[in-house]
Amino acid sequence: MKIALSQLNFHIGNLNYNSEKIINAINKAKTENVDLIIFSELSVCGYCPLDMLEHRNFIKDCNDAINKIVIHTTGIAVIIGSPTINPHQKGKKLYNSAIFIKNQAIIKTVNKTLLPTYDVFDETRYFEPNDVFEIIEYKNKKIALTICADLWDEQRTNGNFTKDILFENNPLKYLSKCKPDFIVNIAATPYSFRHAKIHEDILINNAKKYSTPIIYVNQIGANTDLIYDGGSLVINNKGQKVIEANYFEEDFTSINLDDINQLQEIQVIKQNKYADIYKALVLGVSDYCEKSGFKKAVIGLSGGIDSALTLAIAVGALGAENVDAILMPSIYSSEHSVIDAIDMAERCKIKYHIINIEELRLSFDNSMSGVFEGTKQDVTEENIQARIRGSVLMAYSNKFGHILLNPSNKSEIAIGYSTMYGDMNGAISVLGDIYKTEVYELANYINQNIKNIIPQNTITKAPSAELRPNQQDNDNLPDYELLDRILFEYIENQLSANEIEKLVNNRKTINSVIKLVNNSEFKRFQSPPIIRISSKAFGTGRKMPIVAKF
Amino acid sequence: MKIALSQLNFHIGNLNYNSEKIINAINKAKTENVDLIIFSELSVCGYCPLDMLEHRNFIKDCNDAINKIVIHTTGIAVIIGSPTINPHQKGKKLYNSAIFIKNQAIIKTVNKTLLPTYDVFDETRYFEPNDVFEIIEYKNKKIALTICADLWDEQRTNGNFTKDILFENNPLKYLSKCKPDFIVNIAATPYSFRHAKIHEDILINNAKKYSTPIIYVNQIGANTDLIYDGGSLVINNKGQKVIEANYFEEDFTSINLDDINQLQEIQVIKQNKYADIYKALVLGVSDYCEKSGFKKAVIGLSGGIDSALTLAIAVGALGAENVDAILMPSIYSSEHSVIDAIDMAERCKIKYHIINIEELRLSFDNSMSGVFEGTKQDVTEENIQARIRGSVLMAYSNKFGHILLNPSNKSEIAIGYSTMYGDMNGAISVLGDIYKTEVYELANYINQNIKNIIPQNTITKAPSAELRPNQQDNDNLPDYELLDRILFEYIENQLSANEIEKLVNNRKTINSVIKLVNNSEFKRFQSPPIIRISSKAFGTGRKMPIVAKF
Repeated sequence: MKIALSQLNFHIGNLNYNSEKIINAINKAKTENVDLIIFSELSVCGYCPLDMLEHRNFIKDCNDAINKIVIHTTGIAVIIGSPTINPHQKGKKLYNSAIFIKNQAIIKTVNKTLLPTYDVFDETRYFEPNDVFEIIEYKNKKIALTICADLWDEQRTNGNFTKDILFENNPLKYLSKCKPDFIVNIAATPYSFRHAKIHEDILINNAKKYSTPIIYVNQIGANTDLIYDGGSLVINNKGQKVIEANYFEEDFTSINLDDINQLQEIQVIKQNKYADIYKALVLGVSDYCEKSGFKKAVIGLSGGIDSALTLAIAVGALGAENVDAILMPSIYSSEHSVIDAIDMAERCKIKYHIINIEELRLSFDNSMSGVFEGTKQDVTEENIQARIRGSVLMAYSNKFGHILLNPSNKSEIAIGYSTMYGDMNGAISVLGDIYKTEVYELANYINQNIKNIIPQNTITKAPSAELRPNQQDNDNLPDYELLDRILFEYIENQLSANEIEKLVNNRKTINSVIKLVNNSEFKRFQSPPIIRISSKAFGTGRKMPIVAKF
Repeated sequence: MKIALSQLNFHIGNLNYNSEKIINAINKAKTENVDLIIFSELSVCGYCPLDMLEHRNFIKDCNDAINKIVIHTTGIAVIIGSPTINPHQKGKKLYNSAIFIKNQAIIKTVNKTLLPTYDVFDETRYFEPNDVFEIIEYKNKKIALTICADLWDEQRTNGNFTKDILFENNPLKYLSKCKPDFIVNIAATPYSFRHAKIHEDILINNAKKYSTPIIYVNQIGANTDLIYDGGSLVINNKGQKVIEANYFEEDFTSINLDDINQLQEIQVIKQNKYADIYKALVLGVSDYCEKSGFKKAVIGLSGGIDSALTLAIAVGALGAENVDAILMPSIYSSEHSVIDAIDMAERCKIKYHIINIEELRLSFDNSMSGVFEGTKQDVTEENIQARIRGSVLMAYSNKFGHILLNPSNKSEIAIGYSTMYGDMNGAISVLGDIYKTEVYELANYINQNIKNIIPQNTITKAPSAELRPNQQDNDNLPDYELLDRILFEYIENQLSANEIEKLVNNRKTINSVIKLVNNSEFKRFQSPPIIRISSKAFGTGRKMPIVAKF
């Protein structure tokens, strides 16, 4: 039996586009004499359509798309993913289903059993869990068909405070009794550089445990904050990877079932952590733009590292001809800032404009002078500059239809070292899941491996917001090494101050950092969506109350 | 047996504050010879602490607070709510528990069975469902102790596309077999003017069905977007309300168990819909400020209805002495706007400032002129005015520590008729769950029933954003009556265009409105939290993908 893994980039809710893609892949598979072609989880509608699932007509449209696909399955079997209606009297209206189609007929609909509901996942909001376990027979082979987390009965989620076994049930416990010839797992596994190995190990451990090969098909593409990295796999019955599809791009690969257990294990080349992160961010930006109908982007370029790195990624995603930069110096901008920003823009070969904000700053001073009479200069005047810049960028965005990319990094978002409606502006946050120390590492990675594009002075100079004379970040903040360590233990690992103190001997700084994080929830609530590359990003995967005492 | 219902306003995560409140109520109950005092769901930590629940030390702190409360229970029984640890090997780490304490000892911990996971609820993210059902015996009476949705096995949630029976299980099915003398239901039921009757009917139907009285204790208070309205109830075994605690305020009330089935049914006085909505919004603003440590607020006053209504509510919540207004006329502002705004401020007896934005507008024109050379005036220049105003308001907020209240209404948020980082600015959206037609009705209600404070001209004149010469809302938009009807059917009732067309014979407008709603997801993602008063508010209860085709 020849089996094809079709790893595609779907557009959520774009059912015509998705079903055309699926039909094209089926047609390609037919020409290659494939017996079974497998698509990823919820492939018909894209993962995850969220509350679109609550609309009756959306489910009807999914069903129409399935029927359209069914027509194209003469002489081939196809596995696609779609929401389907739960016909029982009680429970959630939908199942998250894998549909096995053969010769223009739906042969079997298998529903997902283990529904992840943590971090960015919300599946019990929509789906009823399955509790019926049956094998599919095709060409005298027995297939155990599963959906994503169905194989993850044993796993740790984030933090140090969850159980290793999240679910009561375990589909393979039942399905393995029928001695399947292979296991199929259709998935939508979002990328996180900390999780890649964990996900692979789950598949390998299951293949070993049940001595059964696993064919795993993931989607690729970015859906706002979530990046899907592909990397579909075939694992033999000894738990060895024998096929690995491409990462961060569409792929079509096939294998003969009889060969799986004979093939050599793939030798894994250890990648630089930042190689993947760079690809994830580039995909995040390019897909956000393409799927929302934008071709061009604009970035405010300060001469600092964050905006330079954001620009480098934007150029990688959209091409230099599609990215414009605006330099907006004020009297507090150092000479080197403007020089470094121009240097960066010219290295990138992009169009840039210089809009001095001094007149606007003075106009604000003047307009507010009556109301502010008798008050001292403080952070208000710094925020005004940030908001002028934010408004200039949005004006450019509005006038020319360029999407504004936000350059805030995870460290400053964490502690609220940013201005709402100012430097927090943007349609999507490119670096919002990258700590400042990682920003430098990613910049160095790009300079050394992609293109030497970021000026050395931008990387080596001390970071500064340049919102008042001679300001530097470490006037107010701890060193970024220390700050980022505390943030990582608090945010990713969810440790308490006491627990962090065992790792970082600086209780005063720990307390002040945690307090800053907690007091910035109201700011983050209004932040742009953040491209997620870690195991715990700010955004939908971290739901904190705004009004609360921590 | 004398039973007290303690309906309190808790502060999420403020365990000392909450446990002090609980202990004070216990002490009061002791002086009144109460045998059993009942507090609301998750009363120890406040509902709902969201991902604070993922922190080990938070759960430890809850446990410490419980132990502190236990000490104060000599001679009395107490029911409190708290997260507790699930001791089993598998599943979610926590239970949502009701803890029965007596004479300084925890007698029983009952866990919630039916965990709501829809709209604003996310309980399966944190909690494992209970599947053990036992009666509590106290003073020779049998108590069926349940938690909130445990009684809601039969209910419709939002939309027309959910099942009447959401859950497979039903705690009362088991508990009723033990013939309980009464049912206790501790709850945290957020207010929604469409749901109030539904919630009450569920309790009444259960009391009738099992011929058993129900004591229902709800919390009150606002937690950012969610308003809890109290209204704790005692319902007799015939399904009649015999005690109803106050709405929108703390309350302490008690009853003798033996009297419940003898008491007369309370005669219900039908309230104006807007009476409750007004109270909900006032509580939303006052609690947001108090719980986040703000005393004072600032509002941009345009002379239009939205900002006037927001101001009226803010004055109701914080007092006239704590609310400042800023008038920011431009050359496009009509004379009557300034007159109406001043009139409103003076009727409210609040401090106000006039900051003309003309200099700033010209500075932006001038600063952008090089980049904008050869382009035509368009919505960009309108947005610049909105962003100038937004920046002026934030400058005032930053300088004087006043919280900025946002006056956007639900109709404009729905269709994106607003400027990001401009008139969308604010810490909390006061009217974001009120359609424009309801804005007028609420304004009239306030003028007629609270205080005649909103100028008649503000109510009767045609609405306009005044961002270009002679602009009026219905230049671009359908009449608000039509717009709001379509929005309501699409958002609250989740109907499709085809379904709405059966109700509103105007397919072209239906299509354009739905398109506007879907295309504005990216704006709403960065909106302030919205005080929720309907059954489907924008915000955490409506999770739509940003990048998608609808």
